[in-house]
Amino acid sequence: MSPHAAQDAAARDVADITGEMPEPLTVAGVPARRAKTMLPTGIAASCHSDMFKSLACYSRPKAHRWDKYISVESKSRKASSLKQAAHYLDNPGLISLGGGLPSAEYFPFDEISIKVPVAPNFSEQETRESGQVLTAGKYDIREGKSEYGVFQGLTMTMIGRPANSILRSVEIAFFSTIVHNPPYSDWQCSLTAGSTASWDMVLRLFCNRGDYILTEEYSFASAMETALPQGLRLAPVKMDEQGLLPSSLDEVLSNWDVSARGARKPFVLYTVPSGQNPTGATQDASRRKEVYKVAQKHDIIIVEDEPYYFLQMQPYKGANAPQDPPPADYNEFLKALIPSFLSLDVDGRVVRLESFSKVLSPGSRTGWLVASEQIVERFLRNAETSTQNPSGMSQIILFKLLDEAWGHEKYLQWLIHIRMGYTSRRNVMLEACEKFLPTSVASWHPPAAGMFHWIKVDWRKHPLARAGKSYDCVEETIFKAAVDEGVLICRGTWFAADTSKEPTDMFFRATFAAAPADKIQQAIKRFGDTLRAQFELK
Amino acid sequence: MSPHAAQDAAARDVADITGEMPEPLTVAGVPARRAKTMLPTGIAASCHSDMFKSLACYSRPKAHRWDKYISVESKSRKASSLKQAAHYLDNPGLISLGGGLPSAEYFPFDEISIKVPVAPNFSEQETRESGQVLTAGKYDIREGKSEYGVFQGLTMTMIGRPANSILRSVEIAFFSTIVHNPPYSDWQCSLTAGSTASWDMVLRLFCNRGDYILTEEYSFASAMETALPQGLRLAPVKMDEQGLLPSSLDEVLSNWDVSARGARKPFVLYTVPSGQNPTGATQDASRRKEVYKVAQKHDIIIVEDEPYYFLQMQPYKGANAPQDPPPADYNEFLKALIPSFLSLDVDGRVVRLESFSKVLSPGSRTGWLVASEQIVERFLRNAETSTQNPSGMSQIILFKLLDEAWGHEKYLQWLIHIRMGYTSRRNVMLEACEKFLPTSVASWHPPAAGMFHWIKVDWRKHPLARAGKSYDCVEETIFKAAVDEGVLICRGTWFAADTSKEPTDMFFRATFAAAPADKIQQAIKRFGDTLRAQFELK
Repeated sequence: MSPHAAQDAAARDVADITGEMPEPLTVAGVPARRAKTMLPTGIAASCHSDMFKSLACYSRPKAHRWDKYISVESKSRKASSLKQAAHYLDNPGLISLGGGLPSAEYFPFDEISIKVPVAPNFSEQETRESGQVLTAGKYDIREGKSEYGVFQGLTMTMIGRPANSILRSVEIAFFSTIVHNPPYSDWQCSLTAGSTASWDMVLRLFCNRGDYILTEEYSFASAMETALPQGLRLAPVKMDEQGLLPSSLDEVLSNWDVSARGARKPFVLYTVPSGQNPTGATQDASRRKEVYKVAQKHDIIIVEDEPYYFLQMQPYKGANAPQDPPPADYNEFLKALIPSFLSLDVDGRVVRLESFSKVLSPGSRTGWLVASEQIVERFLRNAETSTQNPSGMSQIILFKLLDEAWGHEKYLQWLIHIRMGYTSRRNVMLEACEKFLPTSVASWHPPAAGMFHWIKVDWRKHPLARAGKSYDCVEETIFKAAVDEGVLICRGTWFAADTSKEPTDMFFRATFAAAPADKIQQAIKRFGDTLRAQFELK
Repeated sequence: MSPHAAQDAAARDVADITGEMPEPLTVAGVPARRAKTMLPTGIAASCHSDMFKSLACYSRPKAHRWDKYISVESKSRKASSLKQAAHYLDNPGLISLGGGLPSAEYFPFDEISIKVPVAPNFSEQETRESGQVLTAGKYDIREGKSEYGVFQGLTMTMIGRPANSILRSVEIAFFSTIVHNPPYSDWQCSLTAGSTASWDMVLRLFCNRGDYILTEEYSFASAMETALPQGLRLAPVKMDEQGLLPSSLDEVLSNWDVSARGARKPFVLYTVPSGQNPTGATQDASRRKEVYKVAQKHDIIIVEDEPYYFLQMQPYKGANAPQDPPPADYNEFLKALIPSFLSLDVDGRVVRLESFSKVLSPGSRTGWLVASEQIVERFLRNAETSTQNPSGMSQIILFKLLDEAWGHEKYLQWLIHIRMGYTSRRNVMLEACEKFLPTSVASWHPPAAGMFHWIKVDWRKHPLARAGKSYDCVEETIFKAAVDEGVLICRGTWFAADTSKEPTDMFFRATFAAAPADKIQQAIKRFGDTLRAQFELK
């Protein structure tokens, strides 16, 4: 059977549009691909990731079906009859008295502008002195000035079709193709109102009250706080310096005792593979492959939450060793990135949560997710009755910056700029740790991505521990002593998935993302002083 | 007991700030009140509705407690230990390695600008030709240029304290005080990511799977589609041309049969009191008082979803009658508004959902809700793990427009401008209906608010009905015939809360919000032609 015969009608339509474009898609190949697509520009113009796929993509197998894992809540979601009526809007000459969209004359915004860097002059000072001003006008489409205008930004979120959006059409599907190129055919993207909201919705999509989900034994506190009130329980998986241990994942799943646990075997794994929060651990390529194999063995869904994916840093070679030069160009940068779970996902079992929070700003409340068509469709049904599309004001701003001004090439340059910035911050912190922390009680692994440094403290040597006091007492005492010394550093137990028993080891989490270099040094010195005093070291 | 003695410590602190300000708060009184408050400006500066209340407010009784109505999910929400640690940030000299906020140098936005109307020149053309450009700079606070800058817009949503926000502090609490002045003391405001998301969260706050909620018998389709997948069921309340019938509400609640229904008595009423979607009905002041009394009798929560509150229009006096002049000033405009449920809410049983969708644009995905402190606190715990704050980009744009450029007075002028615009659109539609619809089968009441016109069709006179065909068949036939004639108008059953039995009457919903006047006339003419043909009239 030819690859074409396996395609459904939609795929064939798309193939007609995208034609015989070379595979894989590269940054340089985007303009030609884009010229072959017909970008939607009307009020309710619909846009679809398929517009950006290549023929080769369609010859790949489809994702597995996950009907068995769709929650009671998600199963009962229906597309609204009102929105289904929107297809009549294509009738020529039809006048709609249907939808409740206010007339644009009652939106008092004629232009939205931003001042942003001209690549490669990315510093704040350069931007201020010689940045470019990008302006979106209300009727830029009608006036032939742009593919999207303020009008679209002011209305897109309301039209009742979250699948439509300014950003999705122009950037996201291309970007997912270039960076991850998922090895199955029917993957889709959807914009989200940020990964916090989408994680909440992904949980509601898969899980019923009483279910367990799998998490790293130390996990993102907010992610756990999202799950628990939904009546979900956490099944922690052990970690090492590369994060999640496949053997532990296998063990938890293989030995799952339904009656002892009072719950079916878990099938959703939440993981932050790069620069994990709080441990800073990054799974390397072979670790991810092993984890994926275990996921296949037990047929589970992997939710990879990847805000720090582009905060993968240059290797750390020690305080006095010469540092690696930056990636020579974006190709070298892309090659240096560890493959995502999405890029390994032959089965369509990965839900990837993407975020602009750490690379453009948390304030846009705009992210996206990539998953199989079935999952994205269920996600969209939820978005229609909760977040809808993310802010259209954010979208028009991101469109102007990412699409019209920068394009993929300059955006990747920006990401290299950030990579080098975080590398240098991480190095400052590690050098300060080497200089100021007492290694007799403190130890750590250099983080390879993200914003977090995870410091292990040998708490059993603490005088209170030796006097028989509890783990909790020692952790709290050290935390408060550090605050008194003038440094706020997070207690490891704030991130513990299993709070029912006393942990073995004690950790503190420090971030190198926010404070300037001299403050990082000063803060680590204060923490070193705290430890020395607390442990009565010389 | 003096009023002061009844106040808690927080209230006393606030009283110290707000001082002996006159009550009730007026638009003209805002600058003096604002000057007495200390607006928060730091990264994680917290802001609270209490900063904007008057002493008189604190002498009022507190809201009832609603512990009995908090859902299993909401009850189990806890404040995160991580966020609780944020209070240490106030320690002078403390360096935080705690939070995961990226450094602002990695946010590539130096300025965000908007071009908006100079009041009272609100038209699109005037705005384009002589509008004002408002610019927010990244470090406007540090540079003494504004109360908020782009930096705050880029970070506020991420800081983990949804109670903080740019908009809330400057506009919303003042506005709620001026317009509604809730008659109990401990009401609060919280920003929301739009009313669609907040309705989803309000349901999860109160309801468990299997519960019923009360709705108008015809209700906002999206609101129902939000409730149903949560496992909730709808208990419809009958309506007349003023919407919800208090007698029907009382009857449903008084005769609730727990075992027959298999659910406890419902205690959440969802209502759109002004310009109800889809019926266009507006409850007048005495209707609202009656509904509130029934709510008190059965001790239920009223969720008033009020996107159309400021789309209350001038009275309709007939096609050839002279129209009323616009309100002379904002005081007259405010006086002409029907009191909200919030303004009647002596018990703190109202949750008011507020939206900018219909008065500034749906694309901001920014709204707010007002409710008792207990409810708002539970709402915020949910927002922290889902939507967080709305887009900071939207917030900084709305701040620049509403606070710095317009202030309350000019915003109210804008609302008057919109009122007159919708009045004129509504009149065009009503005059067209009078001219083109066959009154032998079509009848209606002039809508007093909102965007919707609800046309009753005497379907039993339809040839298909006379031949014994079903309600559904007749409705679908008329709908499709109208589409063929070139007009899209919504079927009433798309909005029916009870789909289990055939409705008595048949309705179609038309909106006058979007199409220009000539198109409205043409569309109604087409619908008239459709009806004439369908009903075989001359």
